[in-house]
Amino acid sequence: MNLPVNSANLPHQDDQYVYYFGGGTAEGNATMRNLLGGKGANLAEMCAIGLPVPPGCTITTEVCNAYYEQGKQLPHGLKEQLSQALDRIERDVDARFGDASNPLLVSVRSGSRASMPGMMDTVLNLGLNDVTVEGLAQRTQNARFAYDSYRRFIQMYADVVLGVPHYYFEDAIENLKMEQGYVLDTEATADDLRELCDHYKSRVEAHTGVPFPQDPQEQLWGAILAVFDSWMNRRAITYRTLHHIPESWGTAVNVQAMVFGNMGDDCATGVAFTRNPSTGVAHFYGEYLVNAQGEDVVAGIRTPQSLTIASKEAGDTTLAMEESMPEVFRQLESTCSLLEKHYKDMQDIEFTVQNHKLWILQTRAGKRTAAAAVKIAIDMAQEGLISQHEALLRVDPLALDQLLHPTLDPNAPKHFVTRGLPASPGAASGRIVFSADEAEIRAKMGEKLLLVRIETSPEDIHGMHVAQGILTARGGMTSHAAVVARGMGKPCVSGASSVHIDYKTRTMHAGAHQFSEGDWITIDGATGDVYEGVVPTISADLSGDFERLMHWADAVRTLKIRTNADTPEDAKVARNFGAEGIGLCRTEHMFFDAQKIIAVRQMILSETLEERQVALAKILPMQRQDFIGIFHAMHGLPVTIRLLDPPLHEFLPRSEHEMREVANHAGISIERIRERAHALHEANPMLGHRGCRLGITYPEIYTMQARAILEAAYAVRAEHNITVLPEIMIPLVMHPDEVRILKNAIDEVAADVAQHHKEVLPYMVGTMIELPRAALLAGAIAPHAQFFSFGTNDLTQTTLGISRDDAGSFLGAYKKHGMFDHDPFVTLDVEGVGQLIHLACERGRAVRSDIKLGICGEHGGDPASIAFCHKMGMDYVSCSPFRVPIARLAAAHAVLKEKSS
Amino acid sequence: MNLPVNSANLPHQDDQYVYYFGGGTAEGNATMRNLLGGKGANLAEMCAIGLPVPPGCTITTEVCNAYYEQGKQLPHGLKEQLSQALDRIERDVDARFGDASNPLLVSVRSGSRASMPGMMDTVLNLGLNDVTVEGLAQRTQNARFAYDSYRRFIQMYADVVLGVPHYYFEDAIENLKMEQGYVLDTEATADDLRELCDHYKSRVEAHTGVPFPQDPQEQLWGAILAVFDSWMNRRAITYRTLHHIPESWGTAVNVQAMVFGNMGDDCATGVAFTRNPSTGVAHFYGEYLVNAQGEDVVAGIRTPQSLTIASKEAGDTTLAMEESMPEVFRQLESTCSLLEKHYKDMQDIEFTVQNHKLWILQTRAGKRTAAAAVKIAIDMAQEGLISQHEALLRVDPLALDQLLHPTLDPNAPKHFVTRGLPASPGAASGRIVFSADEAEIRAKMGEKLLLVRIETSPEDIHGMHVAQGILTARGGMTSHAAVVARGMGKPCVSGASSVHIDYKTRTMHAGAHQFSEGDWITIDGATGDVYEGVVPTISADLSGDFERLMHWADAVRTLKIRTNADTPEDAKVARNFGAEGIGLCRTEHMFFDAQKIIAVRQMILSETLEERQVALAKILPMQRQDFIGIFHAMHGLPVTIRLLDPPLHEFLPRSEHEMREVANHAGISIERIRERAHALHEANPMLGHRGCRLGITYPEIYTMQARAILEAAYAVRAEHNITVLPEIMIPLVMHPDEVRILKNAIDEVAADVAQHHKEVLPYMVGTMIELPRAALLAGAIAPHAQFFSFGTNDLTQTTLGISRDDAGSFLGAYKKHGMFDHDPFVTLDVEGVGQLIHLACERGRAVRSDIKLGICGEHGGDPASIAFCHKMGMDYVSCSPFRVPIARLAAAHAVLKEKSS
Repeated sequence: MNLPVNSANLPHQDDQYVYYFGGGTAEGNATMRNLLGGKGANLAEMCAIGLPVPPGCTITTEVCNAYYEQGKQLPHGLKEQLSQALDRIERDVDARFGDASNPLLVSVRSGSRASMPGMMDTVLNLGLNDVTVEGLAQRTQNARFAYDSYRRFIQMYADVVLGVPHYYFEDAIENLKMEQGYVLDTEATADDLRELCDHYKSRVEAHTGVPFPQDPQEQLWGAILAVFDSWMNRRAITYRTLHHIPESWGTAVNVQAMVFGNMGDDCATGVAFTRNPSTGVAHFYGEYLVNAQGEDVVAGIRTPQSLTIASKEAGDTTLAMEESMPEVFRQLESTCSLLEKHYKDMQDIEFTVQNHKLWILQTRAGKRTAAAAVKIAIDMAQEGLISQHEALLRVDPLALDQLLHPTLDPNAPKHFVTRGLPASPGAASGRIVFSADEAEIRAKMGEKLLLVRIETSPEDIHGMHVAQGILTARGGMTSHAAVVARGMGKPCVSGASSVHIDYKTRTMHAGAHQFSEGDWITIDGATGDVYEGVVPTISADLSGDFERLMHWADAVRTLKIRTNADTPEDAKVARNFGAEGIGLCRTEHMFFDAQKIIAVRQMILSETLEERQVALAKILPMQRQDFIGIFHAMHGLPVTIRLLDPPLHEFLPRSEHEMREVANHAGISIERIRERAHALHEANPMLGHRGCRLGITYPEIYTMQARAILEAAYAVRAEHNITVLPEIMIPLVMHPDEVRILKNAIDEVAADVAQHHKEVLPYMVGTMIELPRAALLAGAIAPHAQFFSFGTNDLTQTTLGISRDDAGSFLGAYKKHGMFDHDPFVTLDVEGVGQLIHLACERGRAVRSDIKLGICGEHGGDPASIAFCHKMGMDYVSCSPFRVPIARLAAAHAVLKEKSS
Repeated sequence: MNLPVNSANLPHQDDQYVYYFGGGTAEGNATMRNLLGGKGANLAEMCAIGLPVPPGCTITTEVCNAYYEQGKQLPHGLKEQLSQALDRIERDVDARFGDASNPLLVSVRSGSRASMPGMMDTVLNLGLNDVTVEGLAQRTQNARFAYDSYRRFIQMYADVVLGVPHYYFEDAIENLKMEQGYVLDTEATADDLRELCDHYKSRVEAHTGVPFPQDPQEQLWGAILAVFDSWMNRRAITYRTLHHIPESWGTAVNVQAMVFGNMGDDCATGVAFTRNPSTGVAHFYGEYLVNAQGEDVVAGIRTPQSLTIASKEAGDTTLAMEESMPEVFRQLESTCSLLEKHYKDMQDIEFTVQNHKLWILQTRAGKRTAAAAVKIAIDMAQEGLISQHEALLRVDPLALDQLLHPTLDPNAPKHFVTRGLPASPGAASGRIVFSADEAEIRAKMGEKLLLVRIETSPEDIHGMHVAQGILTARGGMTSHAAVVARGMGKPCVSGASSVHIDYKTRTMHAGAHQFSEGDWITIDGATGDVYEGVVPTISADLSGDFERLMHWADAVRTLKIRTNADTPEDAKVARNFGAEGIGLCRTEHMFFDAQKIIAVRQMILSETLEERQVALAKILPMQRQDFIGIFHAMHGLPVTIRLLDPPLHEFLPRSEHEMREVANHAGISIERIRERAHALHEANPMLGHRGCRLGITYPEIYTMQARAILEAAYAVRAEHNITVLPEIMIPLVMHPDEVRILKNAIDEVAADVAQHHKEVLPYMVGTMIELPRAALLAGAIAPHAQFFSFGTNDLTQTTLGISRDDAGSFLGAYKKHGMFDHDPFVTLDVEGVGQLIHLACERGRAVRSDIKLGICGEHGGDPASIAFCHKMGMDYVSCSPFRVPIARLAAAHAVLKEKSS
């Protein structure tokens, strides 16, 4: 064939375009990723350390760049270098490219610096033609296999190299099956397949106008050019744009000898793990099949056998590889051990034995369960294979979530109903209830319940508290139900849109499944799955390896980890998980308590200061008691309390019954309540009369809260001898004067309380930074604020102009366009919101060098966001109790990655 | 008396603490404001130019600072300097301080560098005691006046200097009146008042323990120290904090001789204007009273007489001052003329004649109507008194608003009903209608209407269009009604909270006033006043002086002025006012047209792409026609068109009738419409599925609009030979990819349209910067955007986290606290939002040096915001049509103030 070689472009003397690997040696190694691509560098590395890898060579990424720079011409000298490499491959595997009786077959694969999965198809079995296929049939004693390989090669090559679409061949095999009355592809005989090959070739010719190439050299160069051309196809360009991969990186091409595990009974194929991927136990482990190829293992037609005697199941009469091929087994075992030591991680290895010779086809870090990940990391550190720091980096913080909650018994039978969003992890079973009130009543009778709602609101909190878990038909990962459930550590499946709920008849259906109130269901908040009835669960074990990992993380991290907790119960859970304080205690959740809500409603409905103060006087002792409970639970650790934040109308009675209740209680007409509720209605409550705007307009609310907090601090000191550091936090600040005015008011209350107790206890006053203006004016706010806590939920909403509650209708389209790598409400938008945080940290510290900086809100439990907070030099992150261990590990990661970068 | 003099602190040789003025000379002048305070510097200036100002002296602000630095001790030497100054005053007015027969009386006043109105009370008539009061009585031949002065002096001095509260004296005069059977204070006789003085003095002694000071020196120093002490009182400290006045500025003290216009018929008092303050005509003008003091003019007991013969009303038989005191009159006239020449502005002058001697008590720039301001500025420039640039600076741009609209005839009788907010200027009368539909029906019958609504929504637009004006019971200065009315240039009174509307009975009441549909009312949008019936109006005259002023402004300004216009009518109005393009054409307003709304609703209710395209195909020709109309009206000037912006649910049918109409039209069930409406409901629509999020999720909507715009451009070129520059604007951008993706889509449409017309017409694609993230990422957005238009309404909402619609409930409290000098939705928040704009301008220009920058939204018509835009180097501002002249002048001011700063 005529190659597009640029003859003007003579090679430099030392221009090496092709890097050989094989026979226990390699011209490249793992560090040459940029030149050889990820796959090429790895193959070279394995060869270099003496592993039996099928020999091959890598055409460098520089060739790809030269190809495009020279107007799609290959550099002079490449052909010769590849030819020499091919000679070496032939020698290594004792087969020859295009040989009639002993043909060398090769694979051709792209491999760029960054992984671009699915961007370029692979061509396997290249070198087959009408002649060599017969040689393959004879050597494998398997004509069916040989022609099936040939058929697949034609189809693959036609698709990838010749541009003949896949579906051109689909009907041919369907026709064959119809004619012969077959059901499965596998029923086709060797003769059928030979006929099919002829048919395929004629299809290719009909489409391209020329016969299917029989010359292996032509096949080879066709595939290589196809790989280079694929670098600029639409799919690759889009992928690169989305993943910010520069075009200039180019792709390498790997040409590698094919080996076969199906050439007789001295052949085999299999998969090995250096440790058990589901438990982490350090035993060699795996499966194999004699006289088979990889596809047979996947297809599941034959049952694979165990590699080791030790891991054979009871009653398994088949031979372990340890028994059937003891010598090759030992070689495999020691090779795998070598690989684990080399890569210092548990390996997942694909191998083939061809005529008693072991070939390693691939090795990679093995996927594992969270439990296995923890065990393997700890074990390897204790074996001295890796350091404690490396062990920490081996465990994905997010994976810990699996360990902290009960999980469904994987072996239990399950009846699937539907799937929603995995909104809060953990598994739970309970009887369906459709209202929070019903939940409360039934819970008192000792029933286990699952609260099922179209969506939840702050009024459902008491029902969520008593339920085992929550299922909603609407709302995303950051809906009310999801956020509150995560805070409570309760399982939640949200946005299960196929669930239709009828509150009137107290029934729901999902597809054909019909349920009534009181029926049992089970949800898996880690997957979003919903099941009929009760599915048994396995509970979490946080001792042993997990505990050790946490201690190692604590020794490394510099960020403190606090928790978001509104109740003494949450606070206790979080302390058990290692929380070092409360970073966000939301006082409004306390207001929904059945006892308090009436007084709160009376307060809101007040039209005069006097009326309001009567109601506040009722609330004060209850609030004080709330804070005593929390201070007691935290036992001297710092507690940040946010003053009342949400718009008042969230507390308003909605139902006729509730309105009447408040009307009676406050001694006013229901009509006035309706009017007031109407007057409090807002077009955009998120940007309305809330946060410290309540404190500015109704100072008596904030001073009541400040008094309750401070009096609680004195009470806890008197009753339990615990000295508390309350950090009183002012929300939704946009102007320095808000902080100045409200801090003055709090200081006045504090002076008054101190005078009464004849003792001055410490406290701090600080502010949330959750509006862009607060971040921009941080330098003017800092003189009045002893700490900043970044409220990244609202800061994200305002910076991006997205209402989290309403984002569902369009964020999907944005993700499809690849505009956000991660949901900005889950992982902090460093590019945008991050700029404001950075600026606020700098300006705040410039004015008050010891200002305490932290983050509360959902991002505080997200590892990537935690890394950002670490980089900003914050003092702490605060997250929901069940995220505390994740945050501890992520904070350690942040330190270690910073060092290594 | 013992003065707190710091004897250790000996004066430097040249330390001057007291600056004398009087007798045609002065030690200070107008430039010494920092040392002498505003009042002291001005008095010195007037003396220095030879005006007959009552002599006096100023104790410097440095004395105030020294007083506080030395622990409230006066500097050594001050007493001597003041004593010398007092001697000079005595000589100048030929009276002596404390003299029994010819007593000098003085006033003592504070005067700081910045005006602090009401911060310090004045003490008048100081020097009166039991002896000098008799001397005053004899000299004035008016014992009643002398004792009334003494009584007032005791009360004032006791309050300001001795700390005896005002109310200590209140009952004394009440008792006197009861005893004597008087109704008015003025009925008291000299003897009554003498008795009252005794009573007052005993009250003072009872409160302070010492007798009321009879020694004039003691009185004087008491008053001086009181002024210094007042600098640190709570009221002053608060005022300084609110107005950012440094404590270190200190206050000066002015001691000035009292003069009396009531010592006989050779005495008088009056007020003069150098030009007519209501018309601006350059005639000397004013009023006086013989043998009277200033208070008599104010009290209105006697009718003042004209100063000049020319300005006497027909039938006025009283003597003008020109006749009664020709010599003093000529002196006054020439003094006033001198003052106008000196201060180069129309002066408002207070004078007193004491025994034939003229004294000027005060001069200041006279308040004037907008018409007078324009005329005076133009006249003075043409007289050569000031330059054209100075003339421009003399007219407050905002005052022009008065000239652009019809105004109520000031002489017409009026029946006041209530007052709301002055939401959109102009006066209008009409019959009350309570619905937009009713307005439309009645308008067709030729009726003049006033649309009265609780509040308005986009669905009322057609009613607002046909009404003469709008009155709402709810909503602020930036409510829907206010914004739309200003855009239309229609009078609007919003938030008239005393108006109660009953839509059912079609009635409204405000207090005792009751109205039914069809009754006539009149509103004044410049004041917020509402009147019964028809009040005649005077229409605007934009020729002559106004036109000249505008031309001068145009010659100076560098900012272009565009307009926000959605219809050809608006566009024409704006062009008449001088608009140089459209900066914001909102396409959604077009959608509310009765013809279009049904198709638009069908489009929104579509659930599939196909359904939506059917509806869009109906809308396309109508949109194209809209743009043809606007392009034609703008005749080649640039037109910026914003693609669809508001949340879709704003267009949804609300009433049962509308739902049925759409259901019939689209051939779907009303139930489905209800469902879809429910699905489109949003918690915070301002941050919801709107702006370019619609373009990303439903690209076909934006491409339809782009096609309509571009096809219109070709049509206008073909039909009218007008070449248009459409600037297609993408709203609510938060991510560079939004602009990239949508620009690509628009470019594809443009290529298609160009191919069809076989001609390429120019167009631009740009973006709004109205979310903080867009401002922060401006550098990444600019490569895809040919222009930025700052949407400061939304940028303010998101940066401050304030929903404009909901701000009414708390912004009032913020203003009370002085947190915002101006409503941030009226005047750009330079401190916060301004930072983001600055940053976006810089980053945008860094990437694309020729990027076109402008601002649309309400701030584009606000002079302070325009000055900021000028400073940022923007290309244009865009504002509602009736604001265009204001913006032209404000843009000129920005240039001139920049030069002078």
